[in-house]
Amino acid sequence: MPVAPDHEPLLRLLHAGAPASALRRLLDTHGDAAAAIAAGSRDWASHGLDAETCNAIRRPDAAALAHGLRWLAGDDHHLLGWRDDAYPPLLRRIAAPPAMLFVAGDPGLLWRPAVAVVGSRTATAGGRTNAAQFAEALARAGLCVASGLAAGIDAAAHAAALAAGGATVAVLGTGPDIAYPARNRQLMAQVEAEGALVSEHPPGTQPLRTHFPSRNRILAGLALGTLVVEAALQSGALITARLAADAGREVFALPGSIHNPMARGCHRLLRDGAALVETPGEVIEVLAPLVLDLARALRGSLEASAAVSPVTGVGLLPVDPDTHKLWRAIGHDPTGMDELVERTGLTAAEVSSMLLALELEGRIAAEHGRYSRIGG
Amino acid sequence: MPVAPDHEPLLRLLHAGAPASALRRLLDTHGDAAAAIAAGSRDWASHGLDAETCNAIRRPDAAALAHGLRWLAGDDHHLLGWRDDAYPPLLRRIAAPPAMLFVAGDPGLLWRPAVAVVGSRTATAGGRTNAAQFAEALARAGLCVASGLAAGIDAAAHAAALAAGGATVAVLGTGPDIAYPARNRQLMAQVEAEGALVSEHPPGTQPLRTHFPSRNRILAGLALGTLVVEAALQSGALITARLAADAGREVFALPGSIHNPMARGCHRLLRDGAALVETPGEVIEVLAPLVLDLARALRGSLEASAAVSPVTGVGLLPVDPDTHKLWRAIGHDPTGMDELVERTGLTAAEVSSMLLALELEGRIAAEHGRYSRIGG
Repeated sequence: MPVAPDHEPLLRLLHAGAPASALRRLLDTHGDAAAAIAAGSRDWASHGLDAETCNAIRRPDAAALAHGLRWLAGDDHHLLGWRDDAYPPLLRRIAAPPAMLFVAGDPGLLWRPAVAVVGSRTATAGGRTNAAQFAEALARAGLCVASGLAAGIDAAAHAAALAAGGATVAVLGTGPDIAYPARNRQLMAQVEAEGALVSEHPPGTQPLRTHFPSRNRILAGLALGTLVVEAALQSGALITARLAADAGREVFALPGSIHNPMARGCHRLLRDGAALVETPGEVIEVLAPLVLDLARALRGSLEASAAVSPVTGVGLLPVDPDTHKLWRAIGHDPTGMDELVERTGLTAAEVSSMLLALELEGRIAAEHGRYSRIGG
Repeated sequence: MPVAPDHEPLLRLLHAGAPASALRRLLDTHGDAAAAIAAGSRDWASHGLDAETCNAIRRPDAAALAHGLRWLAGDDHHLLGWRDDAYPPLLRRIAAPPAMLFVAGDPGLLWRPAVAVVGSRTATAGGRTNAAQFAEALARAGLCVASGLAAGIDAAAHAAALAAGGATVAVLGTGPDIAYPARNRQLMAQVEAEGALVSEHPPGTQPLRTHFPSRNRILAGLALGTLVVEAALQSGALITARLAADAGREVFALPGSIHNPMARGCHRLLRDGAALVETPGEVIEVLAPLVLDLARALRGSLEASAAVSPVTGVGLLPVDPDTHKLWRAIGHDPTGMDELVERTGLTAAEVSSMLLALELEGRIAAEHGRYSRIGG
């Protein structure tokens, strides 16, 4: 695949070490990375970049850049920038989206309705079996199974989704070319060949402890919901679940014996309000309406970029009566779910899926679980 | 123990087959059973008794009455009428309290703070072990372990409480002299000797399918909370838990493997809002403040029957600042918990335990989970 013209400047910005939030603002201001680089130090500084980062943009590490560009020249290797149309839509909605994503494999899978299936690296045999059974059923139902390619639950979920002929996406805490743990190298190659590997880190990035919580936010952000199969109290899977809840996504947890330490984390989530599930069907039942809304919203945003309704003059005004009712109930002051449920008389599930659609359409903003209109 | 003067008329009313609600009203109107019987047919009919029941009061079944009186003449055999001071205070608060209770053993145990430990008759070995471990720890913590003397979880809970030297109460769906199932005869004798057997049915009543749900309401009503250890989806333990929740009591459930059919009922309860517990300490932590409130309220009601505060003139007005705040937040229009939490700024747990105390003091009424003042 030929190197897209924006790859070199995107890599140069990333390697300079600016925080993702500053990079996103730069890209939003200038439209693309080349224009952002052309804007110069004063402009970079006004977007919050410090002197060291500005220097690094001006004098990039040539070897690192070359390594990245060589990797991107490989088959099915992609770099999706914040302003690219291919950037995954659900990931745009989280609190701190990555400024760019490296993808090895099929980047179209990042647009598929996904469920994150996560859990302990030191899962029990029963936990791994449950992970495989759920991943298989979810994949067969057409959901993309996302996970973190770690040992234990993650590996079992990816392998089962692949074995079922389903879609799977692995979000890495390393560069897209580094297998971690090393024993998952073969599984990683298979996910790249039949699914997709995703990372916000440039090729060559080694595993660092701090990368994993930030990896988890991408995993949670790509998925409509997160299922925790087995997790100890200190498990990173709990962080993924918390980030999913913070992003307004569904959180599911499997219960287990009170004598299984690997069930403790799931039980904590259940106490905190996660949905208890015993069968994959229960996950699918909750996600199905969200999948429909997602499809409708994505179709809606494509149409919106082409036309504004000649009748209302504001475009995309919700038309079905329930959505209209919800739209009227949402003011410009941030309003919580409970209040919206009360104002509309709709069920929480109905309100929740309509909110997701309105959010994906860019009609409303969600912050700290409260919703408000954007514009009209 | 000599037969108390009220036993014969109480038994006569019960044997006539009037519903408990009509009997309670009769006793409330006339003060005791002898006076109620003296009031005559027209009065009975005005309390909702039909002609057949009125006939049965006038012409009682002498053999059945004699059987009941013979049983009551036995050691530690008691009959607590609705108007008796010894009638258990928490049981007074449920939607449909029994008009009288037969007790074999120590009736004082019905005033002890209790937790119902219930579950399937066909529990797994692991479930029975959990029941025993929880019952032992709860009994050692000073709670009375109430259950239904059924096979499985119930039997394991009673036996463990007794083995720990703790208090246990068995609520029966038969007369207090009928062992059901028969193989629990020895355990029943031990509960009578060291704890208490309780039934609303007169001696000689055989097990009837319809008696068990109504037995469960007494079990739930005697206890501050109900713990379901293992239960299939069709288990009577779920009825007990639902009745406990309806009565505003705590409901706890142990999670289990998704592959254990005996965990399904617990999982349903957890979905419906029961508290997930992994250790007995978690049950004790929730109940401890309720136990204190119960003790305070019972002391309060005893004092209230003796004196009215000379300062406020209304007696028993709440004095600690938080209770006072809650009292002011409760109006004469029924108000839900959430609203009270919002009005007072107190936690749900604080409000819940204060509400119980105010309810036990007879200051507020609870209906369908909404609270309102009684009188001043």
